[in-house]
Amino acid sequence: MSGPLKVALLGCGTVGRQVLRLLDEQAEDLSARIGRGVEVVGIAVRRPAHHPDVPAHLLTTDAHALVTRDDVDLVVEVIGGIEPARTLILEAFESGASVVSANKALLAEDGVALHAAAAKAGVDLYYEAAVAGAIPLLRPLRESLAGDQLRRVVGIVNGTTNYILSRMAETGAGFAEALAEATDLGYAEADPTADIDGFDAASKAAILASLAFHTPVTAADVHREGISAVSATDVARAAEIGCTVKLLAICERVTNGEGDSVAVRVHPAMIPTSHPLAAVGGAFNAVFVEAEAAGQLMFYGQGAGGEPTASAVLGDLVAVARNRLAGAAGQGTTGYANLPVRTMADTPTRYHVSLDVADKPGVLATVAQEFARHDVSISTVRQDGHGDAATLVIVTHSAPDAALSATIAALRDMPAVRDVTSVLRVEGLT
Amino acid sequence: MSGPLKVALLGCGTVGRQVLRLLDEQAEDLSARIGRGVEVVGIAVRRPAHHPDVPAHLLTTDAHALVTRDDVDLVVEVIGGIEPARTLILEAFESGASVVSANKALLAEDGVALHAAAAKAGVDLYYEAAVAGAIPLLRPLRESLAGDQLRRVVGIVNGTTNYILSRMAETGAGFAEALAEATDLGYAEADPTADIDGFDAASKAAILASLAFHTPVTAADVHREGISAVSATDVARAAEIGCTVKLLAICERVTNGEGDSVAVRVHPAMIPTSHPLAAVGGAFNAVFVEAEAAGQLMFYGQGAGGEPTASAVLGDLVAVARNRLAGAAGQGTTGYANLPVRTMADTPTRYHVSLDVADKPGVLATVAQEFARHDVSISTVRQDGHGDAATLVIVTHSAPDAALSATIAALRDMPAVRDVTSVLRVEGLT
Repeated sequence: MSGPLKVALLGCGTVGRQVLRLLDEQAEDLSARIGRGVEVVGIAVRRPAHHPDVPAHLLTTDAHALVTRDDVDLVVEVIGGIEPARTLILEAFESGASVVSANKALLAEDGVALHAAAAKAGVDLYYEAAVAGAIPLLRPLRESLAGDQLRRVVGIVNGTTNYILSRMAETGAGFAEALAEATDLGYAEADPTADIDGFDAASKAAILASLAFHTPVTAADVHREGISAVSATDVARAAEIGCTVKLLAICERVTNGEGDSVAVRVHPAMIPTSHPLAAVGGAFNAVFVEAEAAGQLMFYGQGAGGEPTASAVLGDLVAVARNRLAGAAGQGTTGYANLPVRTMADTPTRYHVSLDVADKPGVLATVAQEFARHDVSISTVRQDGHGDAATLVIVTHSAPDAALSATIAALRDMPAVRDVTSVLRVEGLT
Repeated sequence: MSGPLKVALLGCGTVGRQVLRLLDEQAEDLSARIGRGVEVVGIAVRRPAHHPDVPAHLLTTDAHALVTRDDVDLVVEVIGGIEPARTLILEAFESGASVVSANKALLAEDGVALHAAAAKAGVDLYYEAAVAGAIPLLRPLRESLAGDQLRRVVGIVNGTTNYILSRMAETGAGFAEALAEATDLGYAEADPTADIDGFDAASKAAILASLAFHTPVTAADVHREGISAVSATDVARAAEIGCTVKLLAICERVTNGEGDSVAVRVHPAMIPTSHPLAAVGGAFNAVFVEAEAAGQLMFYGQGAGGEPTASAVLGDLVAVARNRLAGAAGQGTTGYANLPVRTMADTPTRYHVSLDVADKPGVLATVAQEFARHDVSISTVRQDGHGDAATLVIVTHSAPDAALSATIAALRDMPAVRDVTSVLRVEGLT
């Protein structure tokens, strides 16, 4: 191989345009770093007329023909979505090209099959941009920590929901109001479902858990709750106990008598303000990692946006290009550990519960009994009386999530409990 | 190659023992990740009798014979210091072995020659453990951000000094008192010179700058000031303007009319408490990175200790082992950009200065004139009168460091200035 490395680009939206810009502006540096030039030989788009800034001779609507060209070394896929991205990537592998992708939905749904296809073809599949934008995260998990045992990966991996929750904490606003503000400012899309219902975070959690625990995890394995039920009361209650509310993607290795398993979930939770993740505000992302030998690590940065995502794509592109010149594929990923994935019902969690109760002797005892009946141990309880009513604020110890939610359901039916005003899981409390 | 990968270990202190422990405990996982087992074939130590826990047949005092054994694939160097580490690493390369090292002093002094020797031999040289312990940092800089242009790398890379400065801020103690406490608790060594005078941080800064800017930078190129001159007054003054004092390793690309250059320095500085680095307390390390496309990133974790350092060594070991099996060396580093390194005198910085002055009309004007005479522009000034004296607190705009230090020298000689009570550089203010 003596000419430049030939790149096919699939998609030319916000990220694709930034990839083209960086390839152009950094051409000299990239050549020095790779040891050869990089040439974009084609760009597949649906409507060429929408891309007047791109040299017309590069544009094509025939993505299939582009990815199967004999001379293409690398395919950069920034279309997103499942199809046609999956078919095009598999076609690229079959014709011997490596792939760099930013497609979290596809990797979370079909990562195992895609990795297998890449391995079979002896080519690379890299996708740093799929999780937490420009934050170097997947390569550290795959490579830097390859000699360690990961215990937990806890991330704030969705900027839209983090912006909304940050605003609720700052202004006391409710969810609807904060969402409206985020939409006005362009932090939330017109249809914000993928973000606020946790689908986006669940895809990222599946990818992180797969890499962290060497176990195939798909988005369907991830327990998912969004933030639309988080109330101003929840946020205020969190502040009262020195916590803040975040939408967390939590990937854990659970070790008990039955052997190791993994639990993967996305839900809002209270975390102590002293936790490194608590300070991650606005549209930033951060991922907190606990490893047996390395201890606690955190990675922080911009999780979205054309430029940061393009930076991650180019980092992968350089790695794949260098592997190509060395005549070897880089580190793939293996699901060798293949640990069982726990159900949410069976996953240990902790709850924070606020109740409005009648201020009569014995109410606390009755409520405490209900927790005990479900084998849920209470960590702290605070009772504030006001007139004939009182507020009980309870933080539990860790118990299977099913036991905790059954306790809440039972409390709602108790005559002494006037209202369950706030229920949220708690993470990171010692 | 069909048997296990054969590893020679040089040194068996705190880090070496943890490397052996992890290799043993994680043996099964490592085999799965590498695709082959790992066997330690020899451990070079000075006094075998001091290592009763290690199988005696593995111990040798002849490190030279060990690293030049035909069957050794990888040498793990955790001796530290310049010699004999350098000679042994070069011998290992010559006999075809790759090297994983945790040796910051050696890499900072002689990284260029070592990389050249590894490239010539077609083998790998990895040293993630040399900077910021277990925090995956060098691989992200070398690889993840390879498609981006780095502007600044600012790190808290020495845990001892960070612990001392954190305690000074928390308790109001002076440097000597906080150092004594750190020594008692084992956070500072009996001879703390390498830490408190900034030698350790300067080595790490040289390594970071070399990788970030693709330019050979040695420890001798790094402007270095330690923390022994930081006073309780400096820390109190920092708090007054919403800042905290940290020992920073700062690597910058400076762009001006004369073309790009790099500035690399280690010194205490005030940073705003809102800066992500300000919250990094105690013995933790963190490195803040600004890249053109990726924006702001931060990496946080434990910077020292046997286990975290061993985790980083094993991550490198897995990478080198996989490269070896693939028959290719991994990404090396190149100094292709070879940018000029600026002197400190010529590096733009900002100062915070506190002066005790006579409270007479015209003093502020006289002082301001002195700054102007050195072409230093003032950002903010605050004057507090008390009796016949007053305090002036001045924060400058950015100016060449030589102009700032010349201004301070001139102020010390002014009759109107009774005392210069605090001088510290300021970073991260907007």
